[in-house]
Amino acid sequence: MSRAFALGGFSAGYAALQGLGLTSTAFAKDFAPPPRDLGQGRSVLVLGAGVAGLVTAYELERAGFSVTVVEARERVGGRNWTIRGGDTVETLDRPTQTAGFSKGLYFNAGPARLPSHHQGVLSYAKALDVPLEVEVNSSRSSLLQSDKAFGGKPIQQRQAVNDLRGGLSELLAKATRGGALDQDLTADDRQALLSFLKTYGDLDAGGAYKGSERSGYLTYPGAADQKGVARPPLPLRDLLADEALPYALFEDNILMQATMLEPTGGMDAIPKALAKALKTPPILGAEVTALRQTDKAAEVAVRDRRTGAARKLTADYLVVTLPLPILVKIASDLPAQVKTAIAGARYDNASKVAFDAPRFWEDQQIYGGLSFVGGETTLVWYPSAGFNQPRGLLVGAYTVMGAARAFQARSFDEQIALSRAAVDKLHPGHGKDLAAPLVIDWNRQAFNLGPWIHWEADGNDPAAYALLNRPQGRVFLSGAHLSQLPSWQEGGVAAARRTVGLIADRVRADRLAAPH
Amino acid sequence: MSRAFALGGFSAGYAALQGLGLTSTAFAKDFAPPPRDLGQGRSVLVLGAGVAGLVTAYELERAGFSVTVVEARERVGGRNWTIRGGDTVETLDRPTQTAGFSKGLYFNAGPARLPSHHQGVLSYAKALDVPLEVEVNSSRSSLLQSDKAFGGKPIQQRQAVNDLRGGLSELLAKATRGGALDQDLTADDRQALLSFLKTYGDLDAGGAYKGSERSGYLTYPGAADQKGVARPPLPLRDLLADEALPYALFEDNILMQATMLEPTGGMDAIPKALAKALKTPPILGAEVTALRQTDKAAEVAVRDRRTGAARKLTADYLVVTLPLPILVKIASDLPAQVKTAIAGARYDNASKVAFDAPRFWEDQQIYGGLSFVGGETTLVWYPSAGFNQPRGLLVGAYTVMGAARAFQARSFDEQIALSRAAVDKLHPGHGKDLAAPLVIDWNRQAFNLGPWIHWEADGNDPAAYALLNRPQGRVFLSGAHLSQLPSWQEGGVAAARRTVGLIADRVRADRLAAPH
Repeated sequence: MSRAFALGGFSAGYAALQGLGLTSTAFAKDFAPPPRDLGQGRSVLVLGAGVAGLVTAYELERAGFSVTVVEARERVGGRNWTIRGGDTVETLDRPTQTAGFSKGLYFNAGPARLPSHHQGVLSYAKALDVPLEVEVNSSRSSLLQSDKAFGGKPIQQRQAVNDLRGGLSELLAKATRGGALDQDLTADDRQALLSFLKTYGDLDAGGAYKGSERSGYLTYPGAADQKGVARPPLPLRDLLADEALPYALFEDNILMQATMLEPTGGMDAIPKALAKALKTPPILGAEVTALRQTDKAAEVAVRDRRTGAARKLTADYLVVTLPLPILVKIASDLPAQVKTAIAGARYDNASKVAFDAPRFWEDQQIYGGLSFVGGETTLVWYPSAGFNQPRGLLVGAYTVMGAARAFQARSFDEQIALSRAAVDKLHPGHGKDLAAPLVIDWNRQAFNLGPWIHWEADGNDPAAYALLNRPQGRVFLSGAHLSQLPSWQEGGVAAARRTVGLIADRVRADRLAAPH
Repeated sequence: MSRAFALGGFSAGYAALQGLGLTSTAFAKDFAPPPRDLGQGRSVLVLGAGVAGLVTAYELERAGFSVTVVEARERVGGRNWTIRGGDTVETLDRPTQTAGFSKGLYFNAGPARLPSHHQGVLSYAKALDVPLEVEVNSSRSSLLQSDKAFGGKPIQQRQAVNDLRGGLSELLAKATRGGALDQDLTADDRQALLSFLKTYGDLDAGGAYKGSERSGYLTYPGAADQKGVARPPLPLRDLLADEALPYALFEDNILMQATMLEPTGGMDAIPKALAKALKTPPILGAEVTALRQTDKAAEVAVRDRRTGAARKLTADYLVVTLPLPILVKIASDLPAQVKTAIAGARYDNASKVAFDAPRFWEDQQIYGGLSFVGGETTLVWYPSAGFNQPRGLLVGAYTVMGAARAFQARSFDEQIALSRAAVDKLHPGHGKDLAAPLVIDWNRQAFNLGPWIHWEADGNDPAAYALLNRPQGRVFLSGAHLSQLPSWQEGGVAAARRTVGLIADRVRADRLAAPH
C-alpha cells in the first residue's frame, strides 16, 4: 500500500494529523506583551531603527520602559526603504543616484510583499491603521523566458502550469492503467485516481492530454459563432528542458502563496507608523562607534553624522539590531567568542533595478505578478496597483546569491543595460521605453553591507547563530538575522518580540535579586 | 514515444505551435470601431441598458448615430448591479428587502470579477477612467470543506493543492523508476522527469512525499531556534475521496485565473461610466410592451412605469438586448421561427446571499478569495479590499445550476439559514456574527427571470442560438446570451460590438442601394 495514498489509513491516523484544525497553533497568537508597568524605571537603548529595532522599542515602551532608538540614517526602516522621485541613493564605490521617478510612483527597494501568514508584521499594520492592498505575486499571464527553451521566446505561466499538469497527468494515467501501481493501490484507489486525473490534467476520454483552454486561447470566445480555440500544448519534453520551469512553482513557496499584501503607497508606511507611535522619537543621523557594559549600565558612543559631534548614551539594557557586517566594525567589549561569531558571518548578495515606464505589460494582459528570465537579472516584477495609469514602477531585476554576485561586479551602467535587455526579451521592443533607471546594491549600502544571512549556507556556522542569540549581560543582539526568516520583516518582528521577552525575564530576575 | 512528451518533436513541430508568440492573435485588438461619420442621419433604438446595450449605444454614438437607450429599471447596468446600504431589492413571489449593509460596504449582486483577458470590458474601464483593483480569486489560506471528508473539518487550499501534487508526484516517480514508461520515454526523458518531480512534488531523496511546508506549518518559523515545522500531509486517498477537491482546480479555469480585477468601490462603476459617456442619457423606468418594423422604420411601444403613460419610439434600426425570458412576453412581428427560438430558451439558475460581518476570516489569514463548501450554497467569497477594517461584505452563498434550483425553492429565511450554516462550518462559531442578510434570486428578478443561458445544456437548441444571432430586417438581437460567454460581461461587450458591426454593414448596404 502506497504510503502517500493511505499514510496509515484515514480512520486510524486521522486524529494524529493536527494540521487540519483551525484551532491548531496555526492561528495561535504567540506573542504575549509584557505587563504595562514592568519596565517602570528601566531604560533601554535600541541600536537600529529597522523593523526589529522599532518593534522592540514599541513593545518596550508599551511595557513602561524608557526607550531610546539610535539610527545612523536620516530615515527609519532600515532595509524597509521606499524610494520616490527626488530621493538620493548613495552607494559605496558607485555613483550617487537621484531617483527620477514620476510623481506618485514608488520603489520598494527592500521588502515589497507581506505573506498572509506573517501575522507579526501584519499585526502592527493592523494596530497602526496602515492601509493594505493586494500584492499580485502570481499571475497566469506573466511570463517565463529562457534562452535555451522555446527558441528563447517567452511562454505564459498559464501554459507552463497547465501544459505541465496535463502532460504529467497523461503519463500517470497511462502508468496506472498499465498496471504499474497495482501493488501500491487498490482497484478502488486506481479508479479514483484515474477519474480525478481526467479532471486534473484536462485529459480526453482516452486519457490523452491534447491541450486545454486553461493554457490560453489562440482565438478568444466571442460573439455568435466565434468559439474559443485553445492553444496547442507545449510538449512536456520541451517544458522539462526549460530551465525557467521551476519558477512556475514559485507560487507555492509558502512565503509566496496568495494572498500576498502590501501597504498602499509604499512599504515604508509600516516603519513610519511604528516610529510615529513611539513616545520618544528615534535619534536619526547618529552612527554608533563603540559599545560596552558595566555592572550598572550599558554605554554607547555615537557620532552625529551632520556635525561630527560625539555623544555617549547609557541605559540599563542595550538591544543591538545592527547588521553583523556593521556591528563587526564597532568597538565593543563583547566576549571574544561573540566577536568571532560576528566577524565570521557571511551575508548573501542582493540587488534590484527599478524603472519608470509606460505600462506596456498591461497591453499583454499582465496586471501585477512576476515574469522570470533566469540569468543574472532573474525576474521582472510588475506593479500591483495603479492599473491603466499612464506609467508604472517596473522592477527590471531582482537578483540574489551567485547571480547577484556576478551582477554586482558590473558597473551600474552595465547592470541597467542587462536589466533593460531582460525586459526586452520578455516584451520585445519595450526595453527602450524604460526610463529613470535606479540600482540598489544592498551589499554596497553603507549601513547594511549585505541584505541578509543564510546561516546554513555560504560557509556560515549555525553554532555562531545559537551563540549570538544568547543575551550577553545587559546586551541583547536582535534583528531578522537572528531569526529563521532573515530575509523577511517577519523575522525582524519575531526576533524583536523574543528580545522583549528576554528583557522582561531579565527585569523580573533583577527584581527578585535586588528589588529596584 | 509519448505524444505529450514530444508532440511531433520540438524542432520539427515548433513552428506550428502558434500559441507561443506574443504577436499571435492573443493580443490582437479584434474590434475596429466604424468610421465616425458612418451613422450621420441614422437613428437606433437600443432596448436594455445592461452592458451590451450601453456598449452598443456608446459605439454607435461614436460612429455618428442618434441613439436612444430604453431601460425598464430606474438604474443602468442590468445584471451588473451593486447594492449598498438602503437600496431596495424587489423579488417576484418573495418579500421585498432593504439592504442593511454598513456605510462603505457594497455587494456585487451580479458580475464581481474581470479576468485579465476580458479585454473588451477592460478597454471601457480604461477608456472611461474606471479605477481597478485586484480581485482575489485564489487564496491558499481559504478553505475546502466537505461533510464527507476529513470528518467534515475544513482544510486549507494550500494543503489540497500541495499534498495532492506531492502524492501524485510520488506515484509517477515510482511508476517511472519501475519501468512503466520505458516504452514511452527515452532514458534522458525519464531522467529529466524524475529530477523535476522531486522539485514539483517536494519529494525526499528516496522519491517519497512526506509533507511539505508548502502545505502550511504546524509551527511557524520564528526567532532563534524556533524552526518551522510543516504539517503532516493529507493522505492522497482521503484527498481523492473529498468531493470538494475539484474546487482546488478552480484557479486554473481560464475564466478564473489570476490576475482578476474589480472596479474599486463596486462593479457598477462600469455601466455608470458608460451611461455618463452617452450624449443622450438612457430613458429609465420605461418598460417595452411591443415592437415591430415597417419598410421605413422600427417601432417600439413603451410604458412609463411611474405614470403608466404609453409612448411610441421609432428609429431606423432596433437593437434588442433584453433577456429572452423577458423578450418572449413582448408583442412583436418577429418571424414565427424566431419567436419559437425565443420561447424555447431555458435559462440557468443563480442566487447569491450577502452578509455584513466582522472580518473574522482575516484572523484565519484569509484576505480575499473563495472557500468552497459544496452543497446548495456552494461557496463563500471574501472581500478583496478593505483589509483590517472592522467589517466587510461576505458573500455567504453563490449557487448555480441544480444546486441553485433546489436553493431557490426555499424561503429566503431558509436560504439565509443555510448560508449561515455553511459559513459556520468553515468558520466555527461565526455563523452568528453574520448581519444584514440579503438574498438575490436572479430567476425572480422581474426584468431578468434568469441569470444566463447555456446553449449546449438544459435542453437548449444550438440552432436557435444561430438563428437569433441573425439580423431580422431592422431588428438586431444582441446581449451576452448571444455570445460564447453568456455569464460574463465580456460576452455582452462581444455581442454589442458584433451588433455595431452588423449595423455598420447594413448602413453601407443601404447607402449602396439608395443613398440616404
